[in-house]
Amino acid sequence: MLRWLTAGESHGPALVGIIEGLPAGISISSQDVRDALARRRLGYGRGARMKFEQDAVSFIGGVRHGLTQGGPVAVEVGNTEWPKWDKVMNPDAVDPEELASMARNAPLTRPRPGHADFTGMQKYGFDDARPVLERASARETAARVALGSVASNFLAQLGVQLVSHTVAVGTVSAPENGALPTAADVLALDADPLRCFDNETSAAMVAEVDAAHKEGETLGGIVEVLAYNLPPGLGSYVHWDRRLDARLAGALMGIQAIKGVEVGDGFLTAARRGSAAHDEIVRGDDGVIDRSGNKAGGIEGGMSIGDVLRVRAAMKPIATVPRALRTIDTSTGEETTAHHQRSDVCAVPAAGVVAEAMVALVLAQAMLEKFGGDSLSEVKRNIASYLDAIPANLDSVRRS
Amino acid sequence: MLRWLTAGESHGPALVGIIEGLPAGISISSQDVRDALARRRLGYGRGARMKFEQDAVSFIGGVRHGLTQGGPVAVEVGNTEWPKWDKVMNPDAVDPEELASMARNAPLTRPRPGHADFTGMQKYGFDDARPVLERASARETAARVALGSVASNFLAQLGVQLVSHTVAVGTVSAPENGALPTAADVLALDADPLRCFDNETSAAMVAEVDAAHKEGETLGGIVEVLAYNLPPGLGSYVHWDRRLDARLAGALMGIQAIKGVEVGDGFLTAARRGSAAHDEIVRGDDGVIDRSGNKAGGIEGGMSIGDVLRVRAAMKPIATVPRALRTIDTSTGEETTAHHQRSDVCAVPAAGVVAEAMVALVLAQAMLEKFGGDSLSEVKRNIASYLDAIPANLDSVRRS
Amino acid sequence: MLRWLTAGESHGPALVGIIEGLPAGISISSQDVRDALARRRLGYGRGARMKFEQDAVSFIGGVRHGLTQGGPVAVEVGNTEWPKWDKVMNPDAVDPEELASMARNAPLTRPRPGHADFTGMQKYGFDDARPVLERASARETAARVALGSVASNFLAQLGVQLVSHTVAVGTVSAPENGALPTAADVLALDADPLRCFDNETSAAMVAEVDAAHKEGETLGGIVEVLAYNLPPGLGSYVHWDRRLDARLAGALMGIQAIKGVEVGDGFLTAARRGSAAHDEIVRGDDGVIDRSGNKAGGIEGGMSIGDVLRVRAAMKPIATVPRALRTIDTSTGEETTAHHQRSDVCAVPAAGVVAEAMVALVLAQAMLEKFGGDSLSEVKRNIASYLDAIPANLDSVRRS
Amino acid sequence: MLRWLTAGESHGPALVGIIEGLPAGISISSQDVRDALARRRLGYGRGARMKFEQDAVSFIGGVRHGLTQGGPVAVEVGNTEWPKWDKVMNPDAVDPEELASMARNAPLTRPRPGHADFTGMQKYGFDDARPVLERASARETAARVALGSVASNFLAQLGVQLVSHTVAVGTVSAPENGALPTAADVLALDADPLRCFDNETSAAMVAEVDAAHKEGETLGGIVEVLAYNLPPGLGSYVHWDRRLDARLAGALMGIQAIKGVEVGDGFLTAARRGSAAHDEIVRGDDGVIDRSGNKAGGIEGGMSIGDVLRVRAAMKPIATVPRALRTIDTSTGEETTAHHQRSDVCAVPAAGVVAEAMVALVLAQAMLEKFGGDSLSEVKRNIASYLDAIPANLDSVRRS
Repeated sequence: MLRWLTAGESHGPALVGIIEGLPAGISISSQDVRDALARRRLGYGRGARMKFEQDAVSFIGGVRHGLTQGGPVAVEVGNTEWPKWDKVMNPDAVDPEELASMARNAPLTRPRPGHADFTGMQKYGFDDARPVLERASARETAARVALGSVASNFLAQLGVQLVSHTVAVGTVSAPENGALPTAADVLALDADPLRCFDNETSAAMVAEVDAAHKEGETLGGIVEVLAYNLPPGLGSYVHWDRRLDARLAGALMGIQAIKGVEVGDGFLTAARRGSAAHDEIVRGDDGVIDRSGNKAGGIEGGMSIGDVLRVRAAMKPIATVPRALRTIDTSTGEETTAHHQRSDVCAVPAAGVVAEAMVALVLAQAMLEKFGGDSLSEVKRNIASYLDAIPANLDSVRRS
Repeated sequence: MLRWLTAGESHGPALVGIIEGLPAGISISSQDVRDALARRRLGYGRGARMKFEQDAVSFIGGVRHGLTQGGPVAVEVGNTEWPKWDKVMNPDAVDPEELASMARNAPLTRPRPGHADFTGMQKYGFDDARPVLERASARETAARVALGSVASNFLAQLGVQLVSHTVAVGTVSAPENGALPTAADVLALDADPLRCFDNETSAAMVAEVDAAHKEGETLGGIVEVLAYNLPPGLGSYVHWDRRLDARLAGALMGIQAIKGVEVGDGFLTAARRGSAAHDEIVRGDDGVIDRSGNKAGGIEGGMSIGDVLRVRAAMKPIATVPRALRTIDTSTGEETTAHHQRSDVCAVPAAGVVAEAMVALVLAQAMLEKFGGDSLSEVKRNIASYLDAIPANLDSVRRS
Repeated sequence: MLRWLTAGESHGPALVGIIEGLPAGISISSQDVRDALARRRLGYGRGARMKFEQDAVSFIGGVRHGLTQGGPVAVEVGNTEWPKWDKVMNPDAVDPEELASMARNAPLTRPRPGHADFTGMQKYGFDDARPVLERASARETAARVALGSVASNFLAQLGVQLVSHTVAVGTVSAPENGALPTAADVLALDADPLRCFDNETSAAMVAEVDAAHKEGETLGGIVEVLAYNLPPGLGSYVHWDRRLDARLAGALMGIQAIKGVEVGDGFLTAARRGSAAHDEIVRGDDGVIDRSGNKAGGIEGGMSIGDVLRVRAAMKPIATVPRALRTIDTSTGEETTAHHQRSDVCAVPAAGVVAEAMVALVLAQAMLEKFGGDSLSEVKRNIASYLDAIPANLDSVRRS
Repeated sequence: MLRWLTAGESHGPALVGIIEGLPAGISISSQDVRDALARRRLGYGRGARMKFEQDAVSFIGGVRHGLTQGGPVAVEVGNTEWPKWDKVMNPDAVDPEELASMARNAPLTRPRPGHADFTGMQKYGFDDARPVLERASARETAARVALGSVASNFLAQLGVQLVSHTVAVGTVSAPENGALPTAADVLALDADPLRCFDNETSAAMVAEVDAAHKEGETLGGIVEVLAYNLPPGLGSYVHWDRRLDARLAGALMGIQAIKGVEVGDGFLTAARRGSAAHDEIVRGDDGVIDRSGNKAGGIEGGMSIGDVLRVRAAMKPIATVPRALRTIDTSTGEETTAHHQRSDVCAVPAAGVVAEAMVALVLAQAMLEKFGGDSLSEVKRNIASYLDAIPANLDSVRRS
C-alpha cells in the first residue's frame, strides 16, 4: 500500500515528504526532482517569487547511488528565503520583544475570502491567520511534486508516460476534440507560456492574463492529465474506494483551489444520449480489438481499460486578488479588505504539473496494489505475466 | 475513524453492509432504511423491476430497540427474486448438468461498452462477464443507501439536514441560480417524477425521457447534494487526503456511472475572474458576520465553512442501451452487439439518492474525526463546546 | 489491501463478516466454514451451550459455485437461539411493557471484573452492561473464524498449511522442544480433548480442568499457531507497521482474553546469550542452505524467512468465574458479586482455533501485499516467479 | 487519525519522521526531542558510538515558536558522521571507480543470523546486504523516539505520564511485585546504568553485562512501560483492531529485536485460576470505587480502565555477536562467519525508551480517536466533559 505524508510551511525552513511502499531499484536522481520542481514554476502570469527562487532538493532517505532501496523515500525541498523568516517561523521560542518589533511577525487578522484563513482560525483556535496560510498555501504542492516525480520515474520505468497541459484559462479554452499531446510533446508544452498544446489558444491565453493583470484580477482555468500505456485492470469495481476514478477524483480535488474534476468527457457525457456516450468495442483494421473512441477517458467500471487515461481539474482564480476583497478584521470586528500575500495572476500551468504529480502517485499506488512486487524487476515481471495471460479474444489494443 | 464495507451481488441472496465507528445512541429503525431504499427506486424512466420489487431490510448487528449500540452496524437488504436465481448464483457447487440446462446460467460473453464487463474479465481472469456485472451493477448502491441512512440519522440528530435533487437530465437543465431546496422540500422532491425542484424543468425532463425511450436511448444527467447546518471546520487543509472536498469528490466519483464532480460553482468558477469568484466576508444587516454568496459550495481550504454544502455529480447515460452497442463475443472473437440486462431509460433521480448517501457517510466520518465521541450525547456536547469557544469576531452565521 | 469487518451481537440474530480484497478463484464452500466453526466449539471444559448449538452458515456475497468472485466475501453465522432473544435483542423498538415483564431483559448492573462491562458502560454512556457484553463476548470470534476459514483456504491453495494446538492449560504445560505438529496431525489434535499434541500432557490437562470445575474455578492457558511452507519475505523491516511480527502480535492480542504474545521462543530468548539465541545459517548435509534451528519462529527482521512460522498467545482464565468475583451494583452503588453469563471452565482449545484464524487473515494480507494478484492463478504465478528469481546462494530450504 | 512515517538509513544524511493529525497548541521544543534522544543513548553495555555521537535535531515543519500548529510535524535527526559516509551512501550516483576503491563500500555478503540481512536480500533482490541493514538497523528508532517525544508532550499536557524501566537483562530479573516507578522516579531511572528501578538488581545486571562482554556475548532482556492517569475508555472492544492492547502489542512487537509482548501480568496470568486472575471491583476505604489490584495492566476488554497501564516487551540479545555466528557468503556460497557492524553488549535500556515512544504514539492516537479536537484546549475540554458525565456509581478512582 503506497502511502505518503508531506510536512512544512510556506516560509518554514523546508518542505519534506516521505513516501512508503515503493519497490527497490527505481532509478531517480535529485536532479530529476529539481527538474520536476522547475516545471512547477512555469507559466505566464506568475509573480517575481516564482521566477527567481531556486529549489534546494535533497533526498534524506530511501535512495542510494541513484536507486530506490525499498525503504521509505524522503525528499526535502529547502526554502532559500529561510534566513529572512528564521525568527518569524522559528520552531523554537524566540525572544518576544524581538518578535514584537518585526512587522513580518504581526498577526494576520484580515482573512482572505476563498482561502482557508477564516475557517482555519475557527477550527484550530488561532487569533492569527499565519499558521493557517503557512500550511494551506500552494507552496505545499512542491512536496507533492517532489514525491510525484519519484512515482513518475517508477511509472516511466514500467513504460507509462504522463502528460499534463492547460485546456482553459479564464474564458479562453482550447478546442474540444483537438489532438492530445503525447510524451513527445512535453518539452514543447513546458516551453509554452501557459503549457497549452494549441498555439492559437495559447496566444489568446497570454492576452487574457495580460488583461487580467492590468485590471488587478486573477484567473483560474482547467488542466488535463493524460497517462499513456497503462495496463488494463488498475483499480476495481468491487468496492467504491478501490475505483481508480474515485481515487483520482479525490487526489485532484485535494489540490488547493480545485473545484471540479472530470474523467474523460465528464460533464459533457451527462448531456449525451446512450448511443453517443460510450466507446464501442470493435475490431480494428489490423484485426486487433479496439475502441471506437475514448470518451470514457480510459476508465470503465472504475478500472483502467488500457486506453489513454484522461482526467481534468477545474481551478478557481487565485483568491489573493490584487483588488482586495471585503473581509472582517478578526482582532477588531471591523469591516476591511483582505490581507495580501503574493501577486500571481494565474497559476493554472503550475496546477497542471501538480495534478500530474497527484495522478502519478495514485497510478503508482494502483500498480503496486494490482501487481505487488518489492523490486522494479519483480513488478515488471508480474505485469508482463499478467498481460501474457490475457486470452486473445480479450486482448485489446492500447492507444499508446 | 468511520469505515464501512459492502458485499453482495445483484442477483445474490442479499446485499449486506457493515459500518464501524458510529457512536452509541443514534436513533434508527429498519423502517428508516426501508424508506431510504424506497427513495432509491424513485424516478421516471425506471424499468418494471424497480417499481415492483420491495426491499427486505434487516439489521443483523449494532442496533437494539431502535438505538445504535456502539458496535459495528450491519444491515442486510434481501433479494426478493432470490428463488429464481438460487441455482445460477448459489455460493455452493451446483450440479453441472442442471446448470448447463439453464439458459439463465449461460456465460455472458458479449461485454457492454461503458461497463466493467470487458476489463473485469481481463483483470480477474473470467471467461464469463457474469461475476463482473453481478458486483459492478448499480444494485450494490442499495447497500450504500442502507448504510447512508444510518449516517443520515446520525447527522440529523446533530442538526444537519441533507437534500438531494436532479439539476439536469440529458440536455434539460434546471435554471442556474434558482432557489435551493431545503429539508422542507424533500417530500415534494421525492414526489416529483425526476426529483427536480423546478416544475417546468421537470416537465421538460419527462418529455426528454419519453423521447429517449421511444428512440431506444438512455439518458444521463446531473445531481446536486446539499447539507444544511454543518459546523465550520470539518475536514482540514493540513493534508490533501483530509480535505473535505477531496473526500466528497472521491465518494461521489466512486458511484457507478459518475464521470464528473463539482463543489459549489465548480467548472463555472474556473472561467470567472478573481473578484467575481469568491464569497466575500461581510457583516450582515443584523450585524452578524456573513458571506456575500455561496459560490464556494460551503467549502474553503478543504473545510466546511458553516455555509450550505453544495456538491454535484455528472452521470453518464445508462450503458445498457436498448439499441445495443457494438462489441466482440469473447468466446468466438466475432463482432456482435452487447448483451442486455435491463431497460431503464434514466437513473438520475436514483443517483441523487445514492449521492446523498455517500455525502452522509463522508460527513459523518468528518464529524467523528473532528469531534470524537462514543455516544450521541458526547458528540453533541463536543460540538456545542467547540461552537461556544469560537470568539465573537470569528463567529459567522450559518445559512441553514 | 485485505481488510475485514465483523458485526453482530452474542444473542443477536446473526454474526456477519465481510472480507474485501481476496482474489477470484479461491475454492471455498459453506461446509468449509461450518467445519471451521465446529472446531471452534471443541475442547474439554466447555459448557452445554457449545456442545449442542449448531452454526447456520451462509455466504451472502462474493462466492459463486464454490469459488470466490473477486468481490467482497460476506458470510453470516446465524444464531439458532434467536427466537428466545427476539424481543430482548430486537433491532427495532419493542413494546416497553412487554420488555419490562421479561426477566431476560433486566439491566445487567453488576459488571464482571476482567470483562469490558464496567469500562464499556463508562465509555458508551450505558446504564446496562448488556450492550457491552453482547459485543465484547467471545461469540464474536465465530465471525473471525468464518472469515479466517476463507483466508485459510486461500493459503492452502497456495501451499501454506496452518496448525494450532494447546501448549498450556493453567499450570500444566506441554514439554518444551517437543516435536511440532504438522498438517498431518490436525485431525488428531482436533480429536484430543484439549487440542494438545502430547498425550500425557493432555491427560494432565483434563485432570486440571476437572479439578478447576470442582472448585468453581476457570482456567487460562497458552496456544501456539504454526504456518508451514511460507515463502520468505512476507512483511518488511522498512516500516514498523509492515513487520509481520507486529501484525501478528496485534492480531493475536486483539483476541478476547489474550494478555501475552510471543514469536518463536519469545520471552525465553530474552534470557539467552547471543551465541545461543540465533539460528545460524548453515549448509545442510544435502548441500542446501539451512538454519541451525528455529528459535526465531520463522521471522527475522519482521519478515517470514521461509522456515516454520511459530507464534504463541497467552489467555487469561475466563473472567466469568462460577465463584463470583466482587463488584459494585452500578444501579445502587452497593457492593455485590458479578453477574454470571455462562459456565465454561476453559476455552483455551477454542482460542487456538481463533488464533489460527487471525494468523490466516494476517498471512493472507501479507501474501497479497507482496505478490498482488486478482485471481488465484495470478497470485500463484507471481509467487513462483519470485521464488525462481532468488539466486542459488540466497536460496534456503523451507522446513515444511 | 494520528499517523506517522519515518525515513532514513543508519549511515545516511539524516533520519526524518512526519506525524500527522496532532492538534495545535502542544508545547514542544527541539531541546525536548534532543533530551528524548539522549535518553535513548543511555545504558551500560553500549559501544563507543553511542556515547560520543550527539544528535542534531531540527523541526522542519509543524512547530512554530514552541507550539504545534495543527499541520504535520516533521523532525529531522542529523547524522553527525555523514561526511564519512557521503560517498558510500550518497543518494545520487557516485563515480564507480572511486566507490570501488573504498573498503567501506564493499558489498556485505555475509548475512547475520537473527537480522533482516538474508531475507531482505531475497525480498528486494539485492546482492549486497548494505541496503537492508541500513534501514533495518536500530538507528531508525531514533526517528520514532523523536516523534514519540512530541506525542509524550501532548500526553503530558493532558496529564498523562509515561515511565519506562528495565525489568530483566539476560537471566537477571527485578523482583516481581516490587513497587512501580512513577514519574517522580524518571531521573533516577535514567541515571541508573541499566534503567532498572531496583538497585540490587541493577548491580547484578552490571555484573551480567561485564561477564557477557568478557565472553564476547550479547544480552537481551525485558522492559516495561507504564502510563499514569489515563482516562477510562481508550480503545474499544467493538472491533479487534480498535482494542488498545492489540495496538500496543503491534507497536511494541514492531520494534527491532522484540520477540514477546505482555499486558499486565501477561503469561503469568495464563497459569492462574480465575478467582486469582482478575482485579475485583471494590469500594475503597475512602468510599471510592477501586480495584483490588492491577493484574490486568490497566486494560480490560481492549480499553484503558483508568488504572496504571502496564505493558512489557521481551528483547532478544543483539544479533551482532562478537563471537561471530556461522553464515554463508552469498557471493560465493561458501560457509563463513557473519559480518560485524558494531559492538554493543546490551541495548535493553534503550529499548525501554523506544518502547515508551511507541506507547506514547499509540496512546496519543487513542486519545484523539476518542476525544477528537484540533487544539490542545479542545481536547482537554472534551476529556473533562466526558469524565464529568460519568455517573457516580460508575466513577472509579485512578491509581495515578
